[in-house]
Amino acid sequence: MVDTINIGIIGFGTVGSGTVKILLQNSDLLKRRTGINFNIKKIADLDISRDRGIRIPQEMLTTDAKEILNDPEIDIVVELIGGLHPAKDFIIQAFRNKKHVITANKALIATNGNEIFEEAEKNKVLLGFEASVAGGIPIIKTLREGLVANKILAIYGIINGTSNYILTKMTNEKVDFSQALREAQKLGYAEADPTFDVEGIDTAHKLTILSALSFGIPFLFDKVYTEGITKITSMDIEFALELGYKIKLLAIAKANYNEIEMRVHPTMVPNDYLISKVDGVFNAIYVEGDAVGSTLYYGRGAGDLPTGSAVVADIVEIGKLIISGGLNKIEYQKLSLESLELKIKEMENIESKYYFRFSALDKPGVLSKISGILGKYDISIASVIQKGRRVGGAVPVVILTHTATERNVLQAIKEIDELPVVSDKTLFIRVEGKEE
Amino acid sequence: MVDTINIGIIGFGTVGSGTVKILLQNSDLLKRRTGINFNIKKIADLDISRDRGIRIPQEMLTTDAKEILNDPEIDIVVELIGGLHPAKDFIIQAFRNKKHVITANKALIATNGNEIFEEAEKNKVLLGFEASVAGGIPIIKTLREGLVANKILAIYGIINGTSNYILTKMTNEKVDFSQALREAQKLGYAEADPTFDVEGIDTAHKLTILSALSFGIPFLFDKVYTEGITKITSMDIEFALELGYKIKLLAIAKANYNEIEMRVHPTMVPNDYLISKVDGVFNAIYVEGDAVGSTLYYGRGAGDLPTGSAVVADIVEIGKLIISGGLNKIEYQKLSLESLELKIKEMENIESKYYFRFSALDKPGVLSKISGILGKYDISIASVIQKGRRVGGAVPVVILTHTATERNVLQAIKEIDELPVVSDKTLFIRVEGKEE
Repeated sequence: MVDTINIGIIGFGTVGSGTVKILLQNSDLLKRRTGINFNIKKIADLDISRDRGIRIPQEMLTTDAKEILNDPEIDIVVELIGGLHPAKDFIIQAFRNKKHVITANKALIATNGNEIFEEAEKNKVLLGFEASVAGGIPIIKTLREGLVANKILAIYGIINGTSNYILTKMTNEKVDFSQALREAQKLGYAEADPTFDVEGIDTAHKLTILSALSFGIPFLFDKVYTEGITKITSMDIEFALELGYKIKLLAIAKANYNEIEMRVHPTMVPNDYLISKVDGVFNAIYVEGDAVGSTLYYGRGAGDLPTGSAVVADIVEIGKLIISGGLNKIEYQKLSLESLELKIKEMENIESKYYFRFSALDKPGVLSKISGILGKYDISIASVIQKGRRVGGAVPVVILTHTATERNVLQAIKEIDELPVVSDKTLFIRVEGKEE
Repeated sequence: MVDTINIGIIGFGTVGSGTVKILLQNSDLLKRRTGINFNIKKIADLDISRDRGIRIPQEMLTTDAKEILNDPEIDIVVELIGGLHPAKDFIIQAFRNKKHVITANKALIATNGNEIFEEAEKNKVLLGFEASVAGGIPIIKTLREGLVANKILAIYGIINGTSNYILTKMTNEKVDFSQALREAQKLGYAEADPTFDVEGIDTAHKLTILSALSFGIPFLFDKVYTEGITKITSMDIEFALELGYKIKLLAIAKANYNEIEMRVHPTMVPNDYLISKVDGVFNAIYVEGDAVGSTLYYGRGAGDLPTGSAVVADIVEIGKLIISGGLNKIEYQKLSLESLELKIKEMENIESKYYFRFSALDKPGVLSKISGILGKYDISIASVIQKGRRVGGAVPVVILTHTATERNVLQAIKEIDELPVVSDKTLFIRVEGKEE
């Protein structure tokens, strides 16, 4: 006898279509692997007339999500509409109707995750969210199960395909940000309003989720320092290459003693690091555990089938737990920072190496003034590039530092930017890699 | 109330020590993450006097594995002695005593896996073997759960650290095989008798396991074509670099229609493939699924703590299933090739691009004779390097081909090696990468 799990899908867009395609096309495979028949009972979307290239009976479709939420036969509700509302209300309603939920909604989990997981626990149901971070890469399962034996020490992730596509294009084709963005929009890799992607917000959502899993802390989106890639110029990318680095939008989380730092910003990554080779729309997450050491996971971060693959993995996992009765398996994030004696490091206390690009007037003594101020703030210089190429009357002076404290860096830059010989605001990029 | 899982460990060598260290050091972390107390009840080893740098009470140690196998309080037996016997007997005995087993023993699973899993199923217990392939990389879980929605199309793995260390050293330092091997032995990366590692046997064991999981087939070690790295010379590595490739010992498994191919051999991998950057003792596994597309997993393949991390992940997984009662979760490999309508592709039917290094006498018309024979066998040439550098009276002629059939290649080489102008056996290496 084959057990059946009934599924209701709310949201028939890109990921919804991918999920349905996989469930239909690989239905035999899934049955063979699990002994379970995963049956799509209903799909809700406001638009049920558009052709998605999938053959499904018309009566499977509805415009009313309640038909799914209130259907007593449906075991698992898959929420794929995105956004905060009504997605959150649908999920809470599904929980109250004792249905397990699977979602790809990183924004919702990052900002409302604590409340949502509490509601799931109260109703003794599960929330699967593998698809919320790095679609094709099973990173949630890896952190929660594969690396369960490890204290996670650090995470470095390229987890926004749009930004990575733009930076890759700027690097390989020497085009500027706006041109790379337009190309990304043309190819459907960036939305008409690209703010969430290029300002690092989407990356911060995902880092919030990865940090909660890695460190056993609540979802603390507000505590993530977030900086996007809009200020990066082709010139900086060229200087970086010259210094042996690529510029990537990295999500960084580290645990050190009882302090956790979470930050998203453009970062210079040494050319010989594997993660610097991750190009285009691909994602990669470097995870360092106290037992395994360095590991890296690479794959597509978005797209109908890659993200659908993650949704279906959650469907299978929860389906198997329903059938086998092992339902108290998944733990919830109900820990407070206090109970863990952890605190979040303020951004101004982080330590990093830095790349500075000063806009200096082409006059004698400029470098001496700048380096004097850096020295005053304990920022020691690793290398300097000054080539006299003029950019609008000024000459870029590039300095790479040894490890310094962010607070000192900000103060030094403030002071330097007030120098009469400095004509424009200084751009700085944090730099990863070992001290030489 | 905290539930307790009692563990007995047989084999207190490298991986045994790593496992014990993690269970002791991260005991609080594991308790917080799972609500379970993982208690080491007994450790068996023939040598219980050696200092492993771990503080454990002397009464925890025994020289008699039966004390673990027959202890009714022990829930999980961890077999870490390696080799076929008595490891197999211990595992079977543990099963019959209704104990779950965790092992890192790839040789045993690859060669006796079908029988062992049948015995586990008969006794309704589980066998965890995450540690058997690529220690620090949770690849078993990824294939079985993270990518469960996918038909696996291809796997390419660097899964033997010893061989990869040797090839990396040969590439970076231009030393020959025997010198690199001696260095690996000095550092403890290679054993005194390195046959299993350098002849590809260990890689074939692991590929057998990955293939069984990926394609749902039995463990078919005998069907894996296996070729080691001992014939690779520094000269070939240099030619490869010149052509834009690195030489890696790859485990390759592909499913195409109803045919599966499984092979281990030195392979030329394009320089811009991520897997070509995997150096030293690190492992990486590229997995292509029909839904996720390209994914890659990277980490340490061996060592006390990385492999211990995998063992502990299995302990946690089985422990949680014991506590939650969800014990019919893990399926077994009980499918036959026939039931799947699959067959294993004979090696001579595979298709690949090839690198040939002919040892030609420095006479006119040699290249024409060689290329004539290649043409006769439908092997078309992509590029040629002939530089006149003499190697013992002969001149190496290097040819890179387009896709050809292995059978034709073997026949052509046989014919070419019989030419009077060819002074030594032709060396060939299979080449990965897209056709240009």
